[in-house]
Order: sequence, then structure tokens, then C-alpha cells
Amino acid sequence: MQSIDPRSFRNALGAFTTGVTIVTTQDRDGNDIGMTANSFNSVSLDPPLVLWSLAKSSLSRDAFMEAEYFAVHILAEDQQPLSDQFSKRGIDKFAGLALARGHGKVPLIDGCSARFECRTSFRYEGGDHIILVGEVVEFEHFERLPLVFQAGKYAIALQKPAPKVRTEDNDGSFSHDSLTYLAGNLHFLMDRQFRAALKHHGLNQRQIYAISLLGAESAQTSSTLIQATEFTGNPITEADITDLTQRGIAATQQNGTLALTDTGRNLLLETVAVTKSCEEDAQSNLAFNEMQILRQLLKRVIRNLMNSDIENKGEA
Amino acid sequence: MQSIDPRSFRNALGAFTTGVTIVTTQDRDGNDIGMTANSFNSVSLDPPLVLWSLAKSSLSRDAFMEAEYFAVHILAEDQQPLSDQFSKRGIDKFAGLALARGHGKVPLIDGCSARFECRTSFRYEGGDHIILVGEVVEFEHFERLPLVFQAGKYAIALQKPAPKVRTEDNDGSFSHDSLTYLAGNLHFLMDRQFRAALKHHGLNQRQIYAISLLGAESAQTSSTLIQATEFTGNPITEADITDLTQRGIAATQQNGTLALTDTGRNLLLETVAVTKSCEEDAQSNLAFNEMQILRQLLKRVIRNLMNSDIENKGEA
Repeated sequence: MQSIDPRSFRNALGAFTTGVTIVTTQDRDGNDIGMTANSFNSVSLDPPLVLWSLAKSSLSRDAFMEAEYFAVHILAEDQQPLSDQFSKRGIDKFAGLALARGHGKVPLIDGCSARFECRTSFRYEGGDHIILVGEVVEFEHFERLPLVFQAGKYAIALQKPAPKVRTEDNDGSFSHDSLTYLAGNLHFLMDRQFRAALKHHGLNQRQIYAISLLGAESAQTSSTLIQATEFTGNPITEADITDLTQRGIAATQQNGTLALTDTGRNLLLETVAVTKSCEEDAQSNLAFNEMQILRQLLKRVIRNLMNSDIENKGEA
Repeated sequence: MQSIDPRSFRNALGAFTTGVTIVTTQDRDGNDIGMTANSFNSVSLDPPLVLWSLAKSSLSRDAFMEAEYFAVHILAEDQQPLSDQFSKRGIDKFAGLALARGHGKVPLIDGCSARFECRTSFRYEGGDHIILVGEVVEFEHFERLPLVFQAGKYAIALQKPAPKVRTEDNDGSFSHDSLTYLAGNLHFLMDRQFRAALKHHGLNQRQIYAISLLGAESAQTSSTLIQATEFTGNPITEADITDLTQRGIAATQQNGTLALTDTGRNLLLETVAVTKSCEEDAQSNLAFNEMQILRQLLKRVIRNLMNSDIENKGEA
């Protein structure tokens, strides 16, 4: 038998994804006790049993060894701060929390994904831990998106897409599944309401981009604007910019840079409002974290494309 | 104490996310035994202990009750078919699998995320299950993206993005985090190589879209092409189409619809090749499933925008 390196062992165990729980009880002096644990799991349906493992070195050891009741809270994805708080030692973990009381006066925390109140059934030997088995006497299921722990990091789980029937396009045409198709669709759809709303100002698409750019970054000149819109294949022109200044939307400042006028800023606000409403439509049935994941993945793909673009230029 | 409804209880337990494992052993007659289990968890670092729960009703009960050794395989995200296979009864679960042999001749399966070979330490009473605690005598960590189980469904976990400092744009400008900005960037970057590669054919953007559309869907006419590209804000024109037919890229057929000529089909193939290479660049450091998730989320967002568009039209 090889000797087990604790760090590698811990890393390998991290391959097993888990939820995150906070287990609470009350000690004999009436103090609320709680700790973060991801060693929870279900055991039995009939009788309803669950288990978790308590470190023998834990400051809460005595409280849980004596407790008739404990409660397991399966944390929701927005309860990561609570998970961190209950992982610490020597602080009042319950500070500021609105608590309910369960069986045995056990503190119950709100906002979780599911909660199990348990009566201790067994305490089993488990090396440097004690395996605590509880019979579930009451439970609540709040159906909030759960917090996940994987490879030592917080995560969220997204349902696995159904396996694709066609994995490759071999017919030489564009698949409606291709990133090109999806990116184009998304862009044009987001842009559509935008364009419709601003059409009555008589501005063209390039000018609307220019207004956004002038609002986002200061010290722009005609040439930086042209450069910044070149990648769209339809860059802003000097004539577009002259038109914007003649309409009083942008003005050349003393230092030679362009800035939005009050009229320009109002147009920008209108643009931003339309975009926001469009983004709300887009996200309507997506969870907050699904949107975060979407943005994160889009950014990685965009970064890849920018890098490959730089590499291609380097080769040329 | 309320009586526990087994179905609701099982659903509430589903809020606790887990990995998926296959546990294997060999029975006294030398038969390979294996089953899917998600009741695995770590117990102790020193000594290194893990546990899982075995249904008393399981056909594999005797084998595991007698086994000195068993192996726990933490499945990788592409091993869902294996998870399904080992959940079934009465089939040869190991059929077609290349097996290695571990301690006690226990069958070892390849392709997993991590694997633990265990010597049975304790068998504990757990209601309708037996809690099996094993000492890890050997383990391997392959670092493949793990398969996840949540709320009764297969999932994959993605690392939670770091909390955002700015959650809202209150300065009336566009955030580089907004979906509009990201969608535009992605689209223009994907389109850029596309445009560069086809510029030498002297075609404009609209004509390139028209060629894609003619390749993807048959029985197009000038008016269906114009209609199909209207949402881009820069729809194809009759003049563009006339130009395509004059160059011999598209031709009007006897039934009045347009079709690509051989020249047109070659142009399409060139377009598809450029797009594929660009998509490969885009995906370079993303896992297969991250791309699946990205596509899935993009489709949901696009569907939302299309629906809101229909609603808006309905109101007008």
C-alpha cells in the first residue's frame, strides 16, 4: 500500500462535486452552534435518514455529540457569504441572522434551498471524523438554485444539454447551432429594438455606435472613433462625425477631442434605456447566475478571437 | 412529527448537488459487480476514509457485504451513458469495457475523473441502506471535468464568476459587461475573418449572407431572401441578387426559385471553412460542455428576444 499524500488525496476528493450545507444545533448552555459542511449525503428513504461527518478536532464537537436534534441547511447559490462565515472560527457566526427555532430549539436559517431537521440516530467512528446519522423529522424544500462546491471552488450547476443528434455539419452549410449563426442572431435581435427606437432621430447605425463610444470613453477624436469601429466592417466616417457636430449632438472641445453635448447625452440615455429593456427581455427566464455564466463564457470566447486575431496579424 | 412523504423527501434531497460514482467489486465467484451511486462522500483524511450507502434491496448487496476491497470511480462529464448503464438491472454492465484490475481483482474502469481503491473498514446500519466506509489504499486523479447530479438530472458545474464590483450601470453609459456589448463584439469578431477572406471575391456582406441562406434553405426567392435578412437592418437588395446571378453565383430555376450554381456552392464551402476555423479559434480553451452550455444559453436568450419581438408587434 502506497502512503497517501494528504494534499493529493484532498484534491482527488475534490473531483466529487457536492452541495454546501450549514449544520446547526444548540449546546447545553443554550448557545447556537453552526458550521459549514459538504460531507452531507442521503442514506435512507424509509426511515428517512441523512448523514454528515464532523471533525473530531472541531470546536463544535461536544455540542453535536450531545445534541438530540440538529438541522442541515442546503445552501442556495447566493449564500456563499454565509458558507464563508460559518467556516470561520472564533466569530459570532449567527450575528445579524434572523433565526427561527426548530425541534430542540435548533436555530433555523432562512434563504436556503432545502432544510432538514433531524433527530440524531447514530454516531459512528470515522477516523479523524465522526459520522452523524440523523432521522429527518421535518423538512422544507424552497427550490432555490443551490450552491455547489467542486475542486475546492464554489460553482453552480447547469443542467446538461441533451446530446446532439448532429455533432458536425458535413453538408457544407451553416448549422443553426453554430456559434457564428447564434452570435449573429443575438446581435441583430438586440440591435433591432435599438435601431427602431432611434430611427426617428434620423441617425445611422454608425452614428449610434459613435454616441455610445463617446459616452463610454473620454478623449476620443475622429480618428480614434474610426479606429474603434473598424472591426464592425462598417466604421464611422468623417462625414458621420461632421453631421453629429452640425446637429449639436457632439462638439469639438478646446483640446481637440470630441464630447457629447447635452442633446447627445440625452440621446445616449435614451439608447441605454432601450438597451436595458431589451436586455431584460433577453434574460426573462434565466436565473441570475445563468446570465453570469453566459457573460463569462462570451468573454472567454471574445478573448480567444481577439488573441487569434493578434496572432494572425503577427503572421501576416 | 409529521409523516414524511417519500417523493417530496427525495425531491428535497435532490437540492443537494452530488457527483456521480460507479462502485465496483468482485464477488466470491469472480463475477464483476458494479453499480451507480451518488451517496458517496469523504469522511477522514487521516486515516483516509470515504463512504457510500448501499441499498439493502440491491442485487449486489451480498457481494459488497463480503468484499474486502471495492473501487469508487468519480465519473467524468462524458460518462453519463456509463452512469445509466450501471443503474440498470439484469444486464451485463461491464460489456465492452476495457477493465484493469485493482486490489482484490476489483474491476477498474477508465476515463473517470478520479478513482479510489478502498479496503472495507466499517459497515454501518443506515435504515434501508448500509453505510460502507472504506480506507483508501490507492487513488488516481485524472482531472477530467466531472459529471454532476442535481434535482434528479445530470448537470455540469461551472465555477462561479467572481462577484461583480459594479452590478448596475448608473452612469448612463454602456458597460463592457452588458449583453448588447458582448453580443456585438462576438458577432463582429466572428464576422471579421469571414469578411476578410471573402473580400477578394468582391461580394458585399449582404451577398455573403444571401449565399449562406441559399445553401441552408431551398426554395428561396428574392422576396424570401429580403424578408429573411430584414432583421439585420441591412437587408439584401434586388440589385445584390441581380449581381449574384450575373456573376453566375446564383441562378433562377424553372420553378422561379433561386439556387446556387457550382461557383456559388464553392463560395459557400469556402465561407463555411473560414467560419469553422474561426469557431475553432473561439473555442480554443473551452471544454466541450462549456461550449454546449454557451450555445444552450444563447438559444434561450435568442428565443426570449424573438418572443418579446412578437409581443411588441402584437401590441403595435
